[in-house]
Amino acid sequence: MRISSYITSDGTASYGIVQDGKLHDAGKALHATLPDLRAVMAAGALDQLEAAAETGEVLDMESVKLLSPLPNPDKIICIGLNYMTHITETGRDKPAKPSIFTRYPSSVVGHDVPMIRPQASDWFDFEGELAVIIGKAGRNISEADAMAYVGGYSCFNDGSIRDYQRHTSQFWAGKNFVDSGSMGPWLVTADEMTDPAAQTMETRLNGEVVQSTPISDLAFNIPELIAYLSIVTELLPGDVIATGTPSGVGLFREPKLFMKDGDRIEVEISGIGTLSNPIRDEGQ
Amino acid sequence: MRISSYITSDGTASYGIVQDGKLHDAGKALHATLPDLRAVMAAGALDQLEAAAETGEVLDMESVKLLSPLPNPDKIICIGLNYMTHITETGRDKPAKPSIFTRYPSSVVGHDVPMIRPQASDWFDFEGELAVIIGKAGRNISEADAMAYVGGYSCFNDGSIRDYQRHTSQFWAGKNFVDSGSMGPWLVTADEMTDPAAQTMETRLNGEVVQSTPISDLAFNIPELIAYLSIVTELLPGDVIATGTPSGVGLFREPKLFMKDGDRIEVEISGIGTLSNPIRDEGQ
Repeated sequence: MRISSYITSDGTASYGIVQDGKLHDAGKALHATLPDLRAVMAAGALDQLEAAAETGEVLDMESVKLLSPLPNPDKIICIGLNYMTHITETGRDKPAKPSIFTRYPSSVVGHDVPMIRPQASDWFDFEGELAVIIGKAGRNISEADAMAYVGGYSCFNDGSIRDYQRHTSQFWAGKNFVDSGSMGPWLVTADEMTDPAAQTMETRLNGEVVQSTPISDLAFNIPELIAYLSIVTELLPGDVIATGTPSGVGLFREPKLFMKDGDRIEVEISGIGTLSNPIRDEGQ
Repeated sequence: MRISSYITSDGTASYGIVQDGKLHDAGKALHATLPDLRAVMAAGALDQLEAAAETGEVLDMESVKLLSPLPNPDKIICIGLNYMTHITETGRDKPAKPSIFTRYPSSVVGHDVPMIRPQASDWFDFEGELAVIIGKAGRNISEADAMAYVGGYSCFNDGSIRDYQRHTSQFWAGKNFVDSGSMGPWLVTADEMTDPAAQTMETRLNGEVVQSTPISDLAFNIPELIAYLSIVTELLPGDVIATGTPSGVGLFREPKLFMKDGDRIEVEISGIGTLSNPIRDEGQ
């Protein structure tokens, strides 16, 4: 099942299933008890969503503004330095533990919505990533049990303002600019993608391939990430784990390659689809 | 005005004014439209809160479980390395920009509620800090205008699991353990503390002073922090900025001094009050 979250043409937030290129709305029927996809996942109500979509309004994808599939997660947990190809290009050694930072939901837009290059910087870089969405709550989860806590997957663009990211040792400032990242175009439920490590990911800037990797190259794989993160915090339904980016980012190219107004950036993952966003300057 | 958030003896979340050692409840009257203090601040409804508290139920402080005054902020933004005394003890130079990381609300308890030492580590350290709570939304706020965006102040304990904090360059893992930090006992509204820099802060472990500083020693002061943060993200009412800790943390003592089951840690700031928490082992 592929589930998108969106704003309909009358301004209402909703969610529904993507099938045959159309949106089958479920949010209108379920809104009173399940206001958003996070609530659906927290209630374990994917069956209810599916049933509602069968009789729900059918919408053209172009008639809505897509949101991140999880527009309001409790947490967006990002893993830095998690492909050896990227670790090597930054000049670092493989870390002993996952390197973790967070993004606020306000920094993440949906599919086809402009990602914003802020006035404060020209160093706007792309980072294609696989996002894992948690399906049920857990703490101190073992690696052996971890995959049972995955609710689905999506494409993620961990758009980064590189000069701000380098202001200090902490990545926060480069990773939280308003509307600088993206996620989508939908969540693919875990039952439809039983082996995420068998997938491949490609990032394209204006049609040119800039990143390409098998997901199996992750330095810390999904069970290892879930086990480590859940020592620290309780993972909740709808939490997003952006699993890290491979080599090819613009910062380490010669010359540097940053995104600018008018560009289009795409992150395609086999078994999921393509997350595509235009780039706009702030205030345009 | 001093405002606390709490769970009453019947399990209801509420908020009210602290006066003469008693809680004057406002949440019961306002709950339908203003479910929590964040909503009150977002609506600019402190007058309404004050009026409701005048006729609200009067509760003993001991009859409730205090929460963080802002139990569900959009963001808890923490500043690392922001007193020269602490920067020096870590062996660093003054950073050119504020060093920033985040905590999840699930890592922060209220006054007198146990802070939890996790099974995963014995390296549980204290960090007394002044918390600034944002009163109105803003982006790209100038230093000159910044203080108008402050809604209030509170005491903050940025409790840290030091070995996890040092797993990688990113502080996340050491700063987000469930119930490892605290905030309170109340929010003091900005109109009652017009010069936060004139205040002093003291942290005490089992009654012994372990940190002591004038707030004026902040390396980046409150207007500088608000200006920098708001370049990146929109600050929202109820957002918490934990402004950093001075020297004296347990990690850099000889021998190291960490908190253990049965200890009591206090953060006192003049003009606000004392945030006090017992330490408990996870699972006790």
